[in-house]
Amino acid sequence: MGARASPDSPTEGGSRGPVDMGSRVSREVGGTAGGRRLAVVDLGSNTFRLVVFEYRPGGPFRLVDEVREVVRLTEGTAPGAPIAPAAVERATRVARLFAGFCDGSDIDEVRAVATSAIRDAPNGDEVLQAIIDAGLPARVVSGHEEARYGYLGAINGTTLTDGLIAELGGGSIQVGRVEDRLLTHAMSQPLGAVRMTDAFMAGDLQTPDDVRALRRHALDVLRLDPWISDAPRLVAMGGAVRTLATMAQKAAAYPLGEVHGFLLSRDALRDLIDRMTALPRRERRRIPGLKADRADIMLAGAVVMDALLQAAAVDRVEVCAEGLRWGVFWEAFLEPADPPLVPDVRETSVRDLAEVYGYDRPHCEQVSRLALEIFDGLARLGVHDGDPREREWLHAAALLHDVGTLVDYNDHHKHGHYLVLNAGLPGFRHRELVIIAQLVRAHRKSMQPPGALGALLKPRDEARILRLAACLRIAEQLEVGRARAITGIDCAREGDLVTLWLRAHGDIDVAMWSARQEAPVFKRATGQRLAVERA
Amino acid sequence: MGARASPDSPTEGGSRGPVDMGSRVSREVGGTAGGRRLAVVDLGSNTFRLVVFEYRPGGPFRLVDEVREVVRLTEGTAPGAPIAPAAVERATRVARLFAGFCDGSDIDEVRAVATSAIRDAPNGDEVLQAIIDAGLPARVVSGHEEARYGYLGAINGTTLTDGLIAELGGGSIQVGRVEDRLLTHAMSQPLGAVRMTDAFMAGDLQTPDDVRALRRHALDVLRLDPWISDAPRLVAMGGAVRTLATMAQKAAAYPLGEVHGFLLSRDALRDLIDRMTALPRRERRRIPGLKADRADIMLAGAVVMDALLQAAAVDRVEVCAEGLRWGVFWEAFLEPADPPLVPDVRETSVRDLAEVYGYDRPHCEQVSRLALEIFDGLARLGVHDGDPREREWLHAAALLHDVGTLVDYNDHHKHGHYLVLNAGLPGFRHRELVIIAQLVRAHRKSMQPPGALGALLKPRDEARILRLAACLRIAEQLEVGRARAITGIDCAREGDLVTLWLRAHGDIDVAMWSARQEAPVFKRATGQRLAVERA
Repeated sequence: MGARASPDSPTEGGSRGPVDMGSRVSREVGGTAGGRRLAVVDLGSNTFRLVVFEYRPGGPFRLVDEVREVVRLTEGTAPGAPIAPAAVERATRVARLFAGFCDGSDIDEVRAVATSAIRDAPNGDEVLQAIIDAGLPARVVSGHEEARYGYLGAINGTTLTDGLIAELGGGSIQVGRVEDRLLTHAMSQPLGAVRMTDAFMAGDLQTPDDVRALRRHALDVLRLDPWISDAPRLVAMGGAVRTLATMAQKAAAYPLGEVHGFLLSRDALRDLIDRMTALPRRERRRIPGLKADRADIMLAGAVVMDALLQAAAVDRVEVCAEGLRWGVFWEAFLEPADPPLVPDVRETSVRDLAEVYGYDRPHCEQVSRLALEIFDGLARLGVHDGDPREREWLHAAALLHDVGTLVDYNDHHKHGHYLVLNAGLPGFRHRELVIIAQLVRAHRKSMQPPGALGALLKPRDEARILRLAACLRIAEQLEVGRARAITGIDCAREGDLVTLWLRAHGDIDVAMWSARQEAPVFKRATGQRLAVERA
Repeated sequence: MGARASPDSPTEGGSRGPVDMGSRVSREVGGTAGGRRLAVVDLGSNTFRLVVFEYRPGGPFRLVDEVREVVRLTEGTAPGAPIAPAAVERATRVARLFAGFCDGSDIDEVRAVATSAIRDAPNGDEVLQAIIDAGLPARVVSGHEEARYGYLGAINGTTLTDGLIAELGGGSIQVGRVEDRLLTHAMSQPLGAVRMTDAFMAGDLQTPDDVRALRRHALDVLRLDPWISDAPRLVAMGGAVRTLATMAQKAAAYPLGEVHGFLLSRDALRDLIDRMTALPRRERRRIPGLKADRADIMLAGAVVMDALLQAAAVDRVEVCAEGLRWGVFWEAFLEPADPPLVPDVRETSVRDLAEVYGYDRPHCEQVSRLALEIFDGLARLGVHDGDPREREWLHAAALLHDVGTLVDYNDHHKHGHYLVLNAGLPGFRHRELVIIAQLVRAHRKSMQPPGALGALLKPRDEARILRLAACLRIAEQLEVGRARAITGIDCAREGDLVTLWLRAHGDIDVAMWSARQEAPVFKRATGQRLAVERA
C-alpha cells in the first residue's frame, strides 16, 4: 500500500477487533467493512504517519491502511532552534498528501496530532499553521497528552497493570507510571533518537566514550523523576523500539515475525549497541533489521533505551507495537469512556480475531463449552492439574479453531495456524500465541510438531498442547452435527479408562462414534483409554 | 470443523466469490457474512457430504463448512444387488445428522441429491424414503442430471471451452462432452471406484492381470460413446481423482498444496498404479496422500481414469476440485440463468477473492489502471512485447495486492502471497497462480525469489515477474496519496531513459518522488533508467 518501499521496520501493530460482542451473532457483522473510517495522523519528529482504522462502534476494528513519510523535522537543528525551512517544506508537502488521502479514501474523521518536534520548536505555531493550511486539521498535543496516548495504546494492547510505559520518538521520550491500569505519573524529556544523535553522535563513527556520555546524560535526565526506579515491568513503544526488536529478532533467528509482545532483554540490547558502535554510520544499515532510513539514529535510540532499563532496574523491556496512534484510536473508539480502557485485553484479542474472520459463533462457543467441560472433568479426576492458563488457551483455541476457513475450507486448520500466528493476539505472550496456534492446527487431521516455533515453548508445553488438543478434538467431534445436542458431560474414571457420559437431546450416535475416533490421541495425551457413552 | 479426522484427501474446492460486482463499492459488502446459507448434500456411494455455501445474490460466495461421513452404500454388494440393511442404517443415521445440522446451523435452503448407488439399487426408493424420513429432503438425480451438475461445476471452475468432463464416483463415472462451453453429450456408466473394486479387485493383492482386466472392461464401456475419443482437453472431478492428484503431488514433492488446477499426467498416473499394485491392499495406506478410508478403492479408481485417458487419447487430465456439489450451488446461485454459466471464470476468481477479503476497490482499480498504462506504454516503446497474458496477471495482482491487510497491515505483502496461493484462483494455471502471488509479494518492500515455487515456473518467468512488479510498484507509489490524482501516463524513451509523463490534477510531488524510488527496480527489470515527470 502507500507506505514507502524503503523501510522494512515494522509499523505499529495491525488488525485488531471488538471489545464487547454483546448479544450480536457474528454472522450479522462480518469484519469491519462498511464501518467507520478514522484517519489518525501522527506528526512526529522523524516521520509523519497516517493510519486508517476501520471499525464498528462497539464492534470489531482493525488497522487497514497506512502512509508513512520521512520528514526529519529536527534534522540539523540544535535543541531549541527553529525548524529549518527545508523541513517545513517537507512537512507541508506531506500534510498536503495526507489531506488528499483523506479526501480520496472515504475517511469519516481525521485526528491529527503534532508532538514534541513541533511543540518545542520556537516556530512551532508557524509550522502547525502551514500544516493546517495544507488541509490537514492538526493540533499540538502537550507532553502530558502525548504520554497519555501512549499509555492508552499500551494499556489496551498489553496486560500491564503495574509498571512503566515508555514511548521513544525522534524528538523526545515519554515515560508513564501505571498502577492498577491507571496512569499515575507521566513525564516527557527531549531524549529522542534524532535529537540525541545530533547532540551526542554527530560523527560517522562513535566511540564507547560517546555511548557512555549519552547514557550518562539520559540517566541523569530520567532520574529526575524518582518514580521511574521501582517498576515491576517496563513496556516500550515507538519506531525506534520496534526497530531494535526486529534487529534483536534477526540476530537470534527468532521464529516469529511479530514485534508486538517481544521481550527484548538488556543483554540483547547491549549486543546491538556493541554491533552498531563497531561500524561507521553508513555501514550500519547492513545489520539485519536496520533499514537505511533509521540506520544513523538507532545507536542513540538504543543507548537511551538501555539507560531507561538501567534507571528502571529491569532486565528486559516488553515491546508494544501499539502506541500513540492506537491511543488516539482508543479514545475515539471507546468514547465517552474516560479513561478509555478495554476491560479484558486477552479476551478482546481473541473475540476480535474471531469476529474479523467471521467465525460461526454458536458453533465455536459450543465447542469451547464442551472442551472446557472435558478439561475440567479431567482435572477433577486428577488426569491433569487444571492449570487456569491452560484452560484459557483452550478457550481461545476453541473460539478460533475455524478462522482458517476464510482462506479455504480445505486445510483450514493450517490456514488458521497461519492467521493466528501472523495476526497476533495482543495481551498473550509469544509462547502462548504459539500454543494457541498449535491447538488451532491440531483441531483436526494429523497432529504436527511445532518446528522452529518450538524455540518459544517451555519444556513441557508440547505435552500441554497434546492434552488440550485432545479436549478440543473430542469437543469438535461431539459438535459434528452443529446441533448443540450435547448439554453436558460428566467424566468418570475406572482404572485406566476415562468415560465421558454425555447428557443430550436427540440422536447423537454419529457424534459419539466420531468422538471415539479420538481415543488414540486421548491415549497419547493422557495415558488413559477413552469411552464415550450416553448418560 | 465437522469433517471426520481420518481422511486427509482434499475435498471439493474452498472459498470462492462474486460473479459481477456491478457498481457496488466493496466496502459496503465485506465478504459473505450475513448472506444466504445453502446446504448442498451429496448422497454418494462411498461418502455422504454436506457442504455449506454462504453467498449474497450476485455477490461474493464461499464454501464455509462441511461434514463428511463415509457410508459405503454398495459395499459388499454386486452390481444390481439391493443396498444392504447395514448400509441403509448407516445412511439413515447420517441423514439424521445432516438434518440436525441444517436445523442448528442457520441454513436457509437444503438441496440434497442422491446419485448412482441409490438410483441404481433395486431398493433405491426405499433407501431414499428412509433418508427423507430421517428429516433430509433428498431427491434422486438421473445420470444425465448428475453429469450436468458435474459439468456446471467444471465449466464454472475452469477455462474449459471444448473437451471432456469426467466425474468419477464410488458407483459410477459421468462423462460429458463440452463444445463452446455447452454440454453436447453426456453419459453415465457403472465404473465407480467402489463398484470396480468389488468386481475386479476383491482380493488383498492385485496382479497386473487384474489391472489389465479392469482397464479392458473400462475401455470397452467408455468406447460405447464414440464422442469420447476426439477431445482436446480432459477435466476430471471426484474424490478419487482428488486423491490421485494428492498422491502424485506428494510423489513429486509438488510445492503447492492446491489440487484444483493440478495437471495429472498419464505417466504419473501409471506410476501410481504400479506403486499400488506392488503392495497388498492394507499396506497401500502408507503411500503418501492415500488415506485409510480410500486405500482399498484407489487402485480401481486409478485404472478407470487411466482407461479414460486412453479412450480420450489425451496425455494428461486437469483436476477440478469443484464438481457435483458446486454444480448444485451454481444452479441455485445463478438462478434463473439456464445454463447457469459464469461469464468469465478468471476475472470472477480474481474479483471474488478481492471481494471476500474486503479490498479497497477504488484504490485497487486505480493501481490496476496505472500499472496497465505503464505496461502498455512500455510495450509501445518496445521495452517488452506486451504479452496479453502478462497484462492479465498484472491486472489480477493489482486488484489483489492488498488482500493481506486482512491478516495484518505489517507484512501484508507476505500475507497476500499466502492468501493468493492458498485460496487459489480457479481458471488460472498453478504457474499463473505463483506468478500472481509473487507479484502481490513484490508490490512493496524487498523483492524475493520464488523459492520452491520456482519449480512451477517457466525459464523466463522470473524476468516476467520482475518486469510486471516494476509496473505494479510504480503504480502503487503513484497512488500513494489514494487521491486518484493521476489521470493518465504517457511513456517516452530517449536512449536508455524512459520517462513517464503524468497527467494529473492537484499536487503530485510526493507521488512523483515516491515513484522515482522505484528506479533501481525498473533498471533491473528493463535495463532502462526511469524518470517521472509531470506532463
